[in-house]
Amino acid sequence: MSNTREYTAAVIVIGNEILSGRTQDTNTNYIASSLSDRGIRLMEARVIPDVKDTIIETVNTLRAQYDYVFTTGGIGPTHDDITAECIARAFDVELKVNDDAFRILEEYYGIEELTQARVKMAYIPVGAKLIANPVSAAPGFQMENVYVFAGVPRIMQAMMNNVVDDLRGGDPMLNASVACSLPESVMAEDVGKLQGDYDGKIEIGSYPHFRAGVLGLSIVLRSTDKETLEKATAELIVLIEGRGEVPLVSYSYN
Amino acid sequence: MSNTREYTAAVIVIGNEILSGRTQDTNTNYIASSLSDRGIRLMEARVIPDVKDTIIETVNTLRAQYDYVFTTGGIGPTHDDITAECIARAFDVELKVNDDAFRILEEYYGIEELTQARVKMAYIPVGAKLIANPVSAAPGFQMENVYVFAGVPRIMQAMMNNVVDDLRGGDPMLNASVACSLPESVMAEDVGKLQGDYDGKIEIGSYPHFRAGVLGLSIVLRSTDKETLEKATAELIVLIEGRGEVPLVSYSYN
Repeated sequence: MSNTREYTAAVIVIGNEILSGRTQDTNTNYIASSLSDRGIRLMEARVIPDVKDTIIETVNTLRAQYDYVFTTGGIGPTHDDITAECIARAFDVELKVNDDAFRILEEYYGIEELTQARVKMAYIPVGAKLIANPVSAAPGFQMENVYVFAGVPRIMQAMMNNVVDDLRGGDPMLNASVACSLPESVMAEDVGKLQGDYDGKIEIGSYPHFRAGVLGLSIVLRSTDKETLEKATAELIVLIEGRGEVPLVSYSYN
Repeated sequence: MSNTREYTAAVIVIGNEILSGRTQDTNTNYIASSLSDRGIRLMEARVIPDVKDTIIETVNTLRAQYDYVFTTGGIGPTHDDITAECIARAFDVELKVNDDAFRILEEYYGIEELTQARVKMAYIPVGAKLIANPVSAAPGFQMENVYVFAGVPRIMQAMMNNVVDDLRGGDPMLNASVACSLPESVMAEDVGKLQGDYDGKIEIGSYPHFRAGVLGLSIVLRSTDKETLEKATAELIVLIEGRGEVPLVSYSYN
């Protein structure tokens, strides 16, 4: 049942608040993890400002290049929420009140409270499919291979969860994480040689980190093939033990 | 003393571990905040994989477009640390052992412990200026308008702190943050009108958020001019009070 085709994706984070440093983006990480689990490879992420031409150009560049594009941010009721309009222009379709979106908002707010600002959130590019928002009603949408999500993490996560099972992916990426307290430079040659031995079959990354003020090292092996992954990981364990350490190993198969 | 020229920057986060979802990037946020304080506008951030051609192309695209480019990640001792080589190729200069970098590493590790993997971290593009690493010795470097930092946040932050005062910036961006518990859609028309009144002078962003499970709203006004910022903020406060709420206001002038 091996699926050799690789599926790719890009994330576009739309929002001045990320670029000003006011807000720490966490949406990219959530989407990245969900995609890894699904066997889809996130190839790049871009954070861009609330500028129409930039949004349109970035969407059109990336949707031509990857299987999936996910945008976050800019679909609320205010003047700086311009994503839906930009997606319509990127696809050269009209932006119109979507009947289903209107009904969802009407039900949530009540018809008397359905102000002009709220109706704005019912304007969806013609041809798009709505993505439910279980938190605050106003939907996201899918236009061909572009998925348009809210920016508020709780809403964004719910929207991602609503679509992820329907995405076509390849074999999911399996991980082994091997942690030790050796300096990265001590392991570098061994790990480089191991990568050479398994080139094209396993990707090995080496990540130093501080925990409680102590420099440690995680070596991460990634592969779609469980047997190869476990074989390479066993070899790495022997190499670390050869340097006098017993590593902590964890596999993540989702 | 107003400086009308706008200074711009881009961040390039280099690392498969961010794209796989394993690691949450926090470096972009740190750089973004430092640049805001310095009066430099972060225009975009890209997360890209450990792929040579992608790194070279992204660096060359962005360094031509912005005043400053900051890269994070990929300058360690292992096989997946390819940033220095890519920067050399992007600038079409040689990658050679830098005498100063070599001495720094020699002093830190001692000559007997200066393995081949560690010497790799002394290979710096010819013409680059070193950026000190007070945490683990191996330096970053500056090549024209491109600043090459480590990926480990503690090291990256130290490197940014080492260079930020020497960056030429414009007038620093001042912020007012006005928080209330009104729904975003209730404030949308008022805020849109206020943005219209101050177009080109103030940027207003509207950010709903969850705190302790409650949906709240922050409206952020940004300007380089203190007087205009305070005037617009006062008007916004009146608008919110008109809706029966007393907002929380904080200014950030750094």
